[in-house]
Amino acid sequence: MYRTHTCGELRIENAGQTVTLAGWVQKSRKLGGMTFVDLRDRYGITQLVVDASADNELIETASSLGREWVLQVTGTVIERQSKNPKMPTGDIEISLSSIKVLNRANTPPFTIEDVSDGGEELRAKYRYLDLRRNPLQKAIKLRHQIAHEVRNYLDAKSFLEIETPYLIKSTPEGARDFVVPSRMNPGQFYALPQSPQTFKQLLMVAGYDRYFQIVRCFRDEDLRADRQPEFTQIDCEMSFVDQEDVLDTFEGMMKTLFKNVLNVEIAGRIPRMSWYDAMDFYGSDKPDIRFGMKIHEVTDLVQGHGFSVFDSVGYVGAINVEGAAEYTRKQIDELTEWVKRPQVGAKGLVYIKLNTDGSIKSSVDKFYTPEQLQAVADRLGANKGDMMLVLCGEKRKAQNMLGVLRIEMGNRLGLRDPFNFAPLWVVDFPLFEWDDETQRFYAMHHPFTAPKPEHLELYYSDKKEDLEKVCANAYDFVLNGTELGGGSIRIHEAEMQQRMFEILGISKEDAEYKFGFIINAFKFGAPPHGGLAFGFDRVCSLFGGQETIRDYIAFPKNNQGRDVMIDSPSYIDQLQMDELFLESKAERKEE
Amino acid sequence: MYRTHTCGELRIENAGQTVTLAGWVQKSRKLGGMTFVDLRDRYGITQLVVDASADNELIETASSLGREWVLQVTGTVIERQSKNPKMPTGDIEISLSSIKVLNRANTPPFTIEDVSDGGEELRAKYRYLDLRRNPLQKAIKLRHQIAHEVRNYLDAKSFLEIETPYLIKSTPEGARDFVVPSRMNPGQFYALPQSPQTFKQLLMVAGYDRYFQIVRCFRDEDLRADRQPEFTQIDCEMSFVDQEDVLDTFEGMMKTLFKNVLNVEIAGRIPRMSWYDAMDFYGSDKPDIRFGMKIHEVTDLVQGHGFSVFDSVGYVGAINVEGAAEYTRKQIDELTEWVKRPQVGAKGLVYIKLNTDGSIKSSVDKFYTPEQLQAVADRLGANKGDMMLVLCGEKRKAQNMLGVLRIEMGNRLGLRDPFNFAPLWVVDFPLFEWDDETQRFYAMHHPFTAPKPEHLELYYSDKKEDLEKVCANAYDFVLNGTELGGGSIRIHEAEMQQRMFEILGISKEDAEYKFGFIINAFKFGAPPHGGLAFGFDRVCSLFGGQETIRDYIAFPKNNQGRDVMIDSPSYIDQLQMDELFLESKAERKEE
Repeated sequence: MYRTHTCGELRIENAGQTVTLAGWVQKSRKLGGMTFVDLRDRYGITQLVVDASADNELIETASSLGREWVLQVTGTVIERQSKNPKMPTGDIEISLSSIKVLNRANTPPFTIEDVSDGGEELRAKYRYLDLRRNPLQKAIKLRHQIAHEVRNYLDAKSFLEIETPYLIKSTPEGARDFVVPSRMNPGQFYALPQSPQTFKQLLMVAGYDRYFQIVRCFRDEDLRADRQPEFTQIDCEMSFVDQEDVLDTFEGMMKTLFKNVLNVEIAGRIPRMSWYDAMDFYGSDKPDIRFGMKIHEVTDLVQGHGFSVFDSVGYVGAINVEGAAEYTRKQIDELTEWVKRPQVGAKGLVYIKLNTDGSIKSSVDKFYTPEQLQAVADRLGANKGDMMLVLCGEKRKAQNMLGVLRIEMGNRLGLRDPFNFAPLWVVDFPLFEWDDETQRFYAMHHPFTAPKPEHLELYYSDKKEDLEKVCANAYDFVLNGTELGGGSIRIHEAEMQQRMFEILGISKEDAEYKFGFIINAFKFGAPPHGGLAFGFDRVCSLFGGQETIRDYIAFPKNNQGRDVMIDSPSYIDQLQMDELFLESKAERKEE
Repeated sequence: MYRTHTCGELRIENAGQTVTLAGWVQKSRKLGGMTFVDLRDRYGITQLVVDASADNELIETASSLGREWVLQVTGTVIERQSKNPKMPTGDIEISLSSIKVLNRANTPPFTIEDVSDGGEELRAKYRYLDLRRNPLQKAIKLRHQIAHEVRNYLDAKSFLEIETPYLIKSTPEGARDFVVPSRMNPGQFYALPQSPQTFKQLLMVAGYDRYFQIVRCFRDEDLRADRQPEFTQIDCEMSFVDQEDVLDTFEGMMKTLFKNVLNVEIAGRIPRMSWYDAMDFYGSDKPDIRFGMKIHEVTDLVQGHGFSVFDSVGYVGAINVEGAAEYTRKQIDELTEWVKRPQVGAKGLVYIKLNTDGSIKSSVDKFYTPEQLQAVADRLGANKGDMMLVLCGEKRKAQNMLGVLRIEMGNRLGLRDPFNFAPLWVVDFPLFEWDDETQRFYAMHHPFTAPKPEHLELYYSDKKEDLEKVCANAYDFVLNGTELGGGSIRIHEAEMQQRMFEILGISKEDAEYKFGFIINAFKFGAPPHGGLAFGFDRVCSLFGGQETIRDYIAFPKNNQGRDVMIDSPSYIDQLQMDELFLESKAERKEE
């Protein structure tokens, strides 16, 4: 036993006790004849003190300590002269009788503080030092806690955690697989799973009824910001359920997480919003409902008054920004430039201000009477002091731009507090997306997603306009404008599946080649089933109030998919290549 | 909601209730005018009955049902005429008012019964059907339960479950890595981890204090029986601990598992046995201590009496098989052939029988007096009716053969009940193994394992015979003759690590090349730490009373590393090969 207590647990009640602690030197300083040392471990920081009256060797050792040295110390808990109410151990300090240096430490290349002086790259290279910092320790602990709560909740609901294989088979659809050459099967490859989708559906066929797994998934994509080649999902599937059963179960899980992890009570039912409403009112399939500022269509109000920009488009929509009538010309110009950037893609921005003096001011004054502008204000519920922002174009595109603008204005107005949690289910997605270029339908989720039971007639119709109306038995869990998870009720009947392939223009042969194995399994008594998966890294970061997932992964990769700490990927021996029957066609760069 | 109850929960108290169940047809049969159907789900089997007086359509549907069809049924719970006390639901049946066929099923290629008529290969191909069988459902549930108990225990002990990466770096030592070509880093490869060893030690450097993970590991080895290319470990590491702290913690974990999962109380402290005793008395580093039959050296008693076979070897040892004096000549001959097989490798077998009439009979009668043979019997504590078996050779080899023979005799005498659990810690391993061929020492565990504190003087000695005596701060957890886990206290000081490399003949440059990254991390304040890993698949199978792990893995691979269900590994597209800058030198077999 190296210690009697951790560095986080001693209190005034322990005064007088002789204790032994072990940890790292956070900092040390001399004051008068005394030496103060902050000793840190995962559990906290405790102040150590070596008195001027201590024996010389002890004083000398105390004076020699460097940052991040590892110590074992023994001493007596005493009440502090000047207490530190910000620290849980701030009422006490340890008057030392001995210091044992367990290990010295080189000076770390950056400070181990809440805000470090090290750049991102340097901290990534020394990730094991960055991980000592308190914000990262909190993040990793939070992740553990969430995983533990998820497992307890699902275990109590009779879910079984079942491990599915990581060495599986490359699939011809979707994102790129990472592949693994097989030495024992020359020329052949395993693939790493993008998700355990096939296996969890097989587990339902196998009668496991309720499955979950907190599982690593792999996707060899060109990495966008904040994507990782390996990521973790909370993956779930249930048998003999309809959509409401799934939503209820996982609504309960998320509420339990909020309550047990963050002590946040989500009152009542988590709202359900149709995909159509999400697009129409928020311009997004993952609306942030922490604030209003809904999108309203105003096409009927603004067309036919001689303003050709509005007259020539299919859709005009607007949002009302409360209290923004104060915006200056300069601010509006800046906002106009902002929406014209390619990331948004608007051609221009029209504003309508309801000034506090009752007057109306707009960039399109000359085309509209104040009464006509007031009609727009009435529809948007705008009041004196507000400013409306109007964009136009093809309907979904314009709504999307308005959605992006809405989020930006929400940010500017401070309406997006990360610790205000507004979860939401988005439901009733269209089952199909029509692609004009290839003149065919694509599955919006995947070709095993079932249509809504009430849309079966449309599903079997021959008309394109009917098929476009078919809603999927699919759902997304959205939190604060981020999609945290999603899933669907799956097709379990052969006839319905056949119809799906027909609509998607997948021939029997093609279906057999691409999905033959799972279709075959389904012939042996597949139960009705459905499920969903949550992005676990993202759940953790949002629960931590952060945008980026990287701090919630102990050893993440950078945007080039590299682990710069261990310097991976790397070249391998020719011998190893030979054993795998492989030859590299890449030019070998000097290392 | 497809059901009001599962197929496992209805009891006599529910009689009179109207219920809806969903599940699979286990079997159906006609008796008189009635149709009986056993409906199965994960939770149990409930008997359904359609009365002769029911309406025609219902009777017709009931008659048409095939095995493994998926049904939703509604009816009234009634008390059975003839109860089945073997089934939890055996007091009741459901008198049906409706049957809805949710899905038909092809006739499965083998029976879904406790003992199936399907061969191993066929069942592997249709694993999703094999997984419906009760023994496999029990195994998978047991696995879930053990994992859950492990997590609860470790969470309560302040361990954090921290996920380490799967895409890591190939290491030049040890077993073969599976590698993963990187598309974004042409010509370079990730490796899949054989264990998270490096990362868990880094987490200790990073101050996480107590880490665990139930984690997949990968080893591209030629598969021996019951090995899998991917397997699961309970991986753990702790800081500021000595060996006893680690043993106590995981002894507590295993006892909790025995208690909570199997309701088995392991009384007292789990025994600790030195590696030397294990080898001397059991001829194995993983002794099965469910039974005695210890090995005794008898070299001093049998040499110098003119029997040249014994006189010419370094070691003669024996075991005493209780009650085996009845063994016939034929049985002894058969046993002699058995030990002469290459798997054991003995040159012959000597027996000494203590007959019940008091006489002594041995295959080496002519070299030894009865008194001399009795001296052997005395050492072994043999009684009338027992038979001693004697083998000789080089000490460790002979002990190993005696160990194998001991296990065999234990099996023959029924001393190895799988539900009698005898756990054991094997400790005090030698730190080094001398290899005569290369004339150098190798690390018995790995080069980061610390010597025992009391052997430090030997560790820094120059003499080979001193170094051979150094014991490692390492330990194995053994259950019923199987190694379930093992680990060590790691070296955390630079000087001690340097000495290790020196003893192993690893130059500074080599050490830098092979381990530079972790050595560097250790310079920034590594705490004393140690840990261990349990083979989770093996823990599950032993808890289930089975020898083979395959039933405890939902989707295992066969001995060629293939998943015959999904037919993986497989060839991939040339396009995919090109993207990875790879060319295959293997001849492509026809598929």
